[in-house]
Parts: sequence; structure tokens; C-alpha cells
Amino acid sequence: MHELAVPPVTLQTGLHWLDLLGVLAFSLSGALLAVRKKFDLFGVLVLGCVTAVGGGAIRDTLTGQTPPLFLRDETYLWAALLGAGLAFAFGERLARFERALSVFDTGGLALFAASGALGALNFGLGPLGVIFAGMLSGVGGGIIRDLIANEVPEVMYRREQLYATAAAAGAAAVYLLHPYLTPFQAQLGGALVVILLRWLSRRGWVRLPVRRLPGE
Amino acid sequence: MHELAVPPVTLQTGLHWLDLLGVLAFSLSGALLAVRKKFDLFGVLVLGCVTAVGGGAIRDTLTGQTPPLFLRDETYLWAALLGAGLAFAFGERLARFERALSVFDTGGLALFAASGALGALNFGLGPLGVIFAGMLSGVGGGIIRDLIANEVPEVMYRREQLYATAAAAGAAAVYLLHPYLTPFQAQLGGALVVILLRWLSRRGWVRLPVRRLPGE
Amino acid sequence: MHELAVPPVTLQTGLHWLDLLGVLAFSLSGALLAVRKKFDLFGVLVLGCVTAVGGGAIRDTLTGQTPPLFLRDETYLWAALLGAGLAFAFGERLARFERALSVFDTGGLALFAASGALGALNFGLGPLGVIFAGMLSGVGGGIIRDLIANEVPEVMYRREQLYATAAAAGAAAVYLLHPYLTPFQAQLGGALVVILLRWLSRRGWVRLPVRRLPGE
Repeated sequence: MHELAVPPVTLQTGLHWLDLLGVLAFSLSGALLAVRKKFDLFGVLVLGCVTAVGGGAIRDTLTGQTPPLFLRDETYLWAALLGAGLAFAFGERLARFERALSVFDTGGLALFAASGALGALNFGLGPLGVIFAGMLSGVGGGIIRDLIANEVPEVMYRREQLYATAAAAGAAAVYLLHPYLTPFQAQLGGALVVILLRWLSRRGWVRLPVRRLPGE
Repeated sequence: MHELAVPPVTLQTGLHWLDLLGVLAFSLSGALLAVRKKFDLFGVLVLGCVTAVGGGAIRDTLTGQTPPLFLRDETYLWAALLGAGLAFAFGERLARFERALSVFDTGGLALFAASGALGALNFGLGPLGVIFAGMLSGVGGGIIRDLIANEVPEVMYRREQLYATAAAAGAAAVYLLHPYLTPFQAQLGGALVVILLRWLSRRGWVRLPVRRLPGE
Repeated sequence: MHELAVPPVTLQTGLHWLDLLGVLAFSLSGALLAVRKKFDLFGVLVLGCVTAVGGGAIRDTLTGQTPPLFLRDETYLWAALLGAGLAFAFGERLARFERALSVFDTGGLALFAASGALGALNFGLGPLGVIFAGMLSGVGGGIIRDLIANEVPEVMYRREQLYATAAAAGAAAVYLLHPYLTPFQAQLGGALVVILLRWLSRRGWVRLPVRRLPGE
């Protein structure tokens, strides 16, 4: 039941198409940032692709699956190139679809966090290891995007909304659910937790404290 | 004698508790930087953890031990979370313990450099490979911390004190000592070299040249 | 014919010396940037080495060859240290050799891109995976250099000249050529494509579009 073979989970669960939507959304977010920073065509494509596949690359490197899935399954890079190409072609005009992009982005975050957690479970890791690996898989692409664009990673800095925290909570849900469910169901459950927390925090019903310094 | 099995050295040598102190100290250093940069609670926890486990993750990835030790042995992430939680709770008030933190930090640097060197020896690497792997294991966490905080890595920039150099010298000592000693003794010897060099440079007795440009 | 054993391609093809020239050139480029940024001696050596071996480390990590080649074959780190030492000793006076450095740099880019593509082919990856792995192997060192020096990676930003694009094209050439040629010949062919494209773009005959924002 839980002996997941390489290639990992996402392909076997029928959630492959949702994974690709997440890749597309992450690629758009990276490529739009590159357009704003006036990278050339190639820089836009590369930043889009790296954002889209970064989280999965971290997941596969940490869990020892080499070459990583995005190199073995070409559909990932095609989806990433499609997203980056759209961002280059339409540029700022995509901003009006920001709400739709944000939905895809949450979907990608949810799926990557859950699949990273399953990959870590597969190695018999404990709860913290599963949560950390799932969280990094979810947010890794965005961190690499912001590092290359020479900005403090957005996930770190005064977010009113839960983002990485939602990914960690989703990974925790996968850990708690997986003794009772199939991998498919556990991944779906974890992803739903991420989506729920993102939605609650967008409404302003959940937020994280920022440490205030004296004199501020 | 030198056939070290996975999981690696640090656990078998009885130096595990010192390793955890180093993790705690590195975590505090990362989390305090995050507090100063006004990251939210989650950002503080993540930057603390990443700083604490980054060096070990680099060591294990370079020597092909996946998943890395910090994911397999949960005590590492607990120690990292403890350090980051203390930094978030007490913030700048910890600055008065700066001297104590610096001692722990040197301990962590020494232990990670020596364990990284032993891990590299275990693969039959030559002297430069051992020194490079040990040095990166020692300083890797701090470099990742500074990259994410969008600063030039502290270890690179006009340090009056030896830091990365001390880690490299400790790794070299492990290489030189290991034909004559047990792994435990070689690791301890390498760690002591790091501590000695750090102490000498704090006293101002050893320093590294900075390249002057013409006209400066 | 195509079953390349570990250690990989570059050593078996007789192109090892050219690989080392590339390492030397990359090391000089990283170390000169470190000199300009006033890093200390150690920082200069480390930035030189990391620039020189970063691309190969990415290639070997992505294709699961651990420890990476630069740790197993000591000549790489010696070449990297030589380059960084020259940069520290002669500093800005090397600027007059900029043209020679650029030739070596292109050689390194070409060789790393082609050997990264061969390594990926060796795993049966498809065209996009081969191109992406080859491109990252070629430009990875420079990206790590610029990240550590806290600059937007040069390859991303408004380059008039093809650079990463040339690496990607060379990797694509390796993919297209390898069914008809020996690995040695395919690598050489891919490297020549990189060199040709670099030369054409230096002459101003080829360039990439930059996305213009409205109102600019």
C-alpha cells in the first residue's frame, strides 16, 4: 500500500494533471517577475522553469530520487515552458488574471507539499522530517525564484497570509492521515488542508505574529 | 576501523550531544537575523532551521547520503526548532548572551567541519576533496542563511577573524590524523584545531590578508 | 557505446585538459569578482572554487553521481585554486587579459554544457531534460557566483550576447547528434555549437529580445 515505487506518487494518483497546473502557475509567477526585472527572453524562460520545478527538485534530491522527476517526465518542462512563454508574450496584461493565477499557485503549493510529504513518508521519516520535506517541496520553487531575482524570499517576509505555514500544515495532515488511508487519499487530504488554510487566511481569519522590536 | 556505515559518524562517536548544541547555536544565529529582518513567526522558524541543518544537508548531498541525516534523525530538527523558538520569544534580549552563542557557534562549526571531512574520507577522497567537503559542511548553513536574508555571506566579506579558514584547517587536520587514529579521535582532533584557530584569531594573533585595489 | 560508466564522460574523451582550462577560467572570473568586492583571501579562493566547480556539482547531483566528480578528481580543485590564486595575486592587472579569459570562459561553458547533456542522455532523459541539464551545467557556476556576491545573476539580465542560450543550443546539438556519433564526437559537436553561437553573438549577428514594458 505504502511502498511507492520510483517514479513517485503524483503520477500514480491520477493527480498528474493538477500537478501540471501547479507547475504552470509557478512558472507564470517566476516568468512575470523576470519580465518586471527586464530579463531577456532566455532569462524569462529560465526563471519560469526554475520556479516551476525547483520545489520538486528539492523534494527529489532530499529523498534520493535522481534524476529528479522533472527531468524524467518531459511534461513538466513543457508545462513550465508554456507558462513562461505566456508570461513573455502577454507580460503585464496577465496581471488582470491575478486571481486565477493565485488559485493555480495555491493548487501547486498544495500538491507539491503533499507529494513531498508522501515521498518523505516513503523513507520512513518521522513527523518533523515529513513536515520539513513537504514544506520545502511546496515553497522551494518560490524561494529559488526570489533568490535569483535578488529579493528577500517573499515567503519569509511579513506575509499577512499563511503560505509556507499552510504547506507545513498540509504535510502534517499527510503524516497524520496516512496510516488510515491510501496514499492517494492522504495526498488529497493534505492538499485540501493547504487550500483551506490559504482560503481562511485570505479572508483575514488566520494570521501569523511578526516579532516587534523594542522602539518600533 | 574506517568503514563508517550510514547513519554517519557523529551518532556513533558519542559526540551527538555536541552536534545538537552546534545545531542549536546555528539555529539561534539564523533566527536572530530573521527577527532583525522582521520575518514573521514562520520565517523565523524556517531561517533558524535552514541555518542549523544547511551544512549537514550539503555534506550528506555531496557524499550521497539521502535522505540527509537531519531528516532521518528527528532530534536535529527539534534542536533547531528550540533555538528558533527561543530567538522568536526573547529576540534582541538574547544579544547579551552573544559570547555564549559564539562559543556554541564555534562548537558547531568545529563539529560539522570535522564530520564532513570524515564523511568525505569515507568515500576515499583525496586531501583537497576532504578539505573542501569539510569546510562547506562547516560554513554552508551560514552561507544559506545570508543568501536567504539577501546579504553577502558574512564568511566571505572582510572578516578580521578566521572562520571558514578555521573550518578548512580542521578538515585538513582530520585528513592528516586519520591514518593514525580512530575516526572518533580524528574528528575530535580536527574539531580542536578549529576551536584553537578561532580562539587565536579572536585574540587578534592570526588574520587573513584582504586584497587592496590600487587607489584605495 | 553509450553506456558511460562512473566517473563520467569528460575523463574518457581525452577532453580532460580542456575541462580543466574551463575550470581555470571560471575560477578566475569568480575570484576577480571577489577581489572587486573586497573579500578576504579565503573568500577569494572559495568564490573562485565554487564558481569553477558549481556547474559540475549541479550536473552530478541531478544525475545522481555522488560524490561529484570535482571531489573525486583532485585536479579540478587544484585548477580552481590555481585560478583563484592568480586572481588574488595579480588582481585587476588581469583585466588586460580579459579577451583571453573570455575565450577560456566560452571553452568551459561549451565543455560543461556538452558533458552535462551527455550525462543526462546517459539516464535516458528526453530532449527537454537533456537541454535543461546541459544548460544548468554550463551556467550553474556563474549563477552561484553571482548569488553569493549578492548580484542578479549576469546570465539573466539584459545580456546583449547569447550565453545561457548558447549552452542550451549546445546541449540540444548533443541530443540530436548522439544517435549517429560516438559520445566523444557528440560532445565535441555540442561544444562547437556553443562556441560558434558565442562568436556570432559577439559580432552582434545574433541577439535575444528583451520584453519591453508599456510606457518605457
